[in-house]
Amino acid sequence: MKQSIVWLGDRVQFIDQSQLPSREYTITTDDPAVVADAICSLSLRGAPLIGIAAAYAVALSALRTAGNDLPHFRLQTSEAMGVLGKTRPTAVNLFWSLRRMTAVLHGPAKSVRELCDALVKEAVEIHREDKEMCRRIGEHGAVLIQDGSTILTHCNTGALATGGEGTAQAVISTAHRQGKRLQVFADETRPVFQGARLTAWELQNLGIDVTVITDGTAATVMKRKKVDMVIVGADRIAANGDVANKIGTYSLALVARAHGVPMYVAAPSSTIDLTIGTGDAMPIEERAREEVASVYGHSIIPEGVRVFAPAFDVTPEHLVTAIITERGIHRPPYNFTASYDGNTP
Amino acid sequence: MKQSIVWLGDRVQFIDQSQLPSREYTITTDDPAVVADAICSLSLRGAPLIGIAAAYAVALSALRTAGNDLPHFRLQTSEAMGVLGKTRPTAVNLFWSLRRMTAVLHGPAKSVRELCDALVKEAVEIHREDKEMCRRIGEHGAVLIQDGSTILTHCNTGALATGGEGTAQAVISTAHRQGKRLQVFADETRPVFQGARLTAWELQNLGIDVTVITDGTAATVMKRKKVDMVIVGADRIAANGDVANKIGTYSLALVARAHGVPMYVAAPSSTIDLTIGTGDAMPIEERAREEVASVYGHSIIPEGVRVFAPAFDVTPEHLVTAIITERGIHRPPYNFTASYDGNTP
Repeated sequence: MKQSIVWLGDRVQFIDQSQLPSREYTITTDDPAVVADAICSLSLRGAPLIGIAAAYAVALSALRTAGNDLPHFRLQTSEAMGVLGKTRPTAVNLFWSLRRMTAVLHGPAKSVRELCDALVKEAVEIHREDKEMCRRIGEHGAVLIQDGSTILTHCNTGALATGGEGTAQAVISTAHRQGKRLQVFADETRPVFQGARLTAWELQNLGIDVTVITDGTAATVMKRKKVDMVIVGADRIAANGDVANKIGTYSLALVARAHGVPMYVAAPSSTIDLTIGTGDAMPIEERAREEVASVYGHSIIPEGVRVFAPAFDVTPEHLVTAIITERGIHRPPYNFTASYDGNTP
Repeated sequence: MKQSIVWLGDRVQFIDQSQLPSREYTITTDDPAVVADAICSLSLRGAPLIGIAAAYAVALSALRTAGNDLPHFRLQTSEAMGVLGKTRPTAVNLFWSLRRMTAVLHGPAKSVRELCDALVKEAVEIHREDKEMCRRIGEHGAVLIQDGSTILTHCNTGALATGGEGTAQAVISTAHRQGKRLQVFADETRPVFQGARLTAWELQNLGIDVTVITDGTAATVMKRKKVDMVIVGADRIAANGDVANKIGTYSLALVARAHGVPMYVAAPSSTIDLTIGTGDAMPIEERAREEVASVYGHSIIPEGVRVFAPAFDVTPEHLVTAIITERGIHRPPYNFTASYDGNTP
């Protein structure tokens, strides 16, 4: 599986996911603003990957400004972090990653050079840890999948969304590697079609049987076909287990519950935000009108008609059968406490 | 409101709905095959409109073959009906309409000319009755809408879907004409975006406040905004009240139930198919892969990946708060009997 992002020592290279599956286009840059733009425009997306990309962008900024004295260097690096922090307000991994970089920036250092090296090292470490987390999520979650299972998923949670082999999708791919026969239904995931474009592409490349459906077809699939589980990722999880994830997830959770299908969420523990008690307190990013209204340059909504386009919805914890992290499988009641605080550096 | 279809005496004129809202393009033809193709390609869509268009196509075929003797004329007209009957297998209004035309075709007639006139007259009558049905559905249903209501709808059920001012949308537009202030959320309705393209366009033209959402956003709208009702149309209703309608309706019904929002269905009584006991027995049309996979010529799904694309789903009667027809408001248990048989000519 091709890596979604690679650190080249003084530049970062990543797949422009907005071009997939038509074109596999790679961007190589030493400019942190290019990375920030790619996060805004969803060329780089997936909560864990956003965290990694932001850390590398901080490293790029540090390398660029390493000629300054220590106070100026710290100021400029902080400013770069401020820009990155505004790209995607719901993705908690972004802030988690930036806090780790901030801690390094304000730690003890004899020279700019030393601090710069430490920032690069921390970004590489965040990436390495993510790979390891994906591996562990996959191993823990695969236990839940029986041979011959039919699985329904939403959005993209694979290698493209992370630094490793994914979150929810790592569970699927690990079960596949264990020799279990699987059939996957992938919601296309409007408005950006990550399920159709990215999940289908990744699962096909892995040799896993995949069928794409429109988001409104999931209920019929559950009624007419045997679906053994729904498994999705998360962009932020509150201390009580409420899950913010790609718009459409909440609807899927309600539909799964109505059909008695278990609803699993797989995410690194860094997704759990202990500063947020319940989903009601989560900031939910709203995307631009055009993301829904314009489909490949074609306007599908008359001018002057409003669009309501939240990027995420919140699935209440009582609809979540279990949450799979790199630490194991967690079942309700979810009382994530300080011992689970992936969110404090 | 512009009429979706107009009979010109020897030709039929209709709006090519596949071009909306970018372009308001009208097709005028005397060729029944052009009408059949337009039904297949969704240029002509909406269950009631399909019935009217099919009747006019039979009239066009009759006018074309009026030079033959009576047995040949009957044979050729029957063949034209056979072609029309294969266009959309779920739309019961299509078969209802063709049965009415068949009854006329095989009725007593002194000459081909007389039979031809009778067929044209029957098609015009089917259209006239539909307009009247829309008006009555609107009046019966508007009683359910309070001033200041927020309404959520799916697909298109307006003038474009019928010969009159619509089914579910006639309920909305009638309430609006009565001076009730309304806010409407319209599901975009993948894969063909009828909600975004057609419903938003029609409601905007009527001066009704409309906001478009992706299909997966409906659950969040119900959770975060006050939604007073969901109202949709139907393509076929079983004798027990199970409703086949545009894919995504069943999901919406489950989501509405979870939020305590009433779910209304508005359709002419000709949509009720007494030959079908429950939704399980309904034939559900599957659309071509490309209807989901290709969005305005842009491929969103990798080659070789399968698509499951049922055009409709079935909402079980226990999720339907009431069914509004031209005869009134019907509440469960729905035991539609012979007295309600719109489906037998």
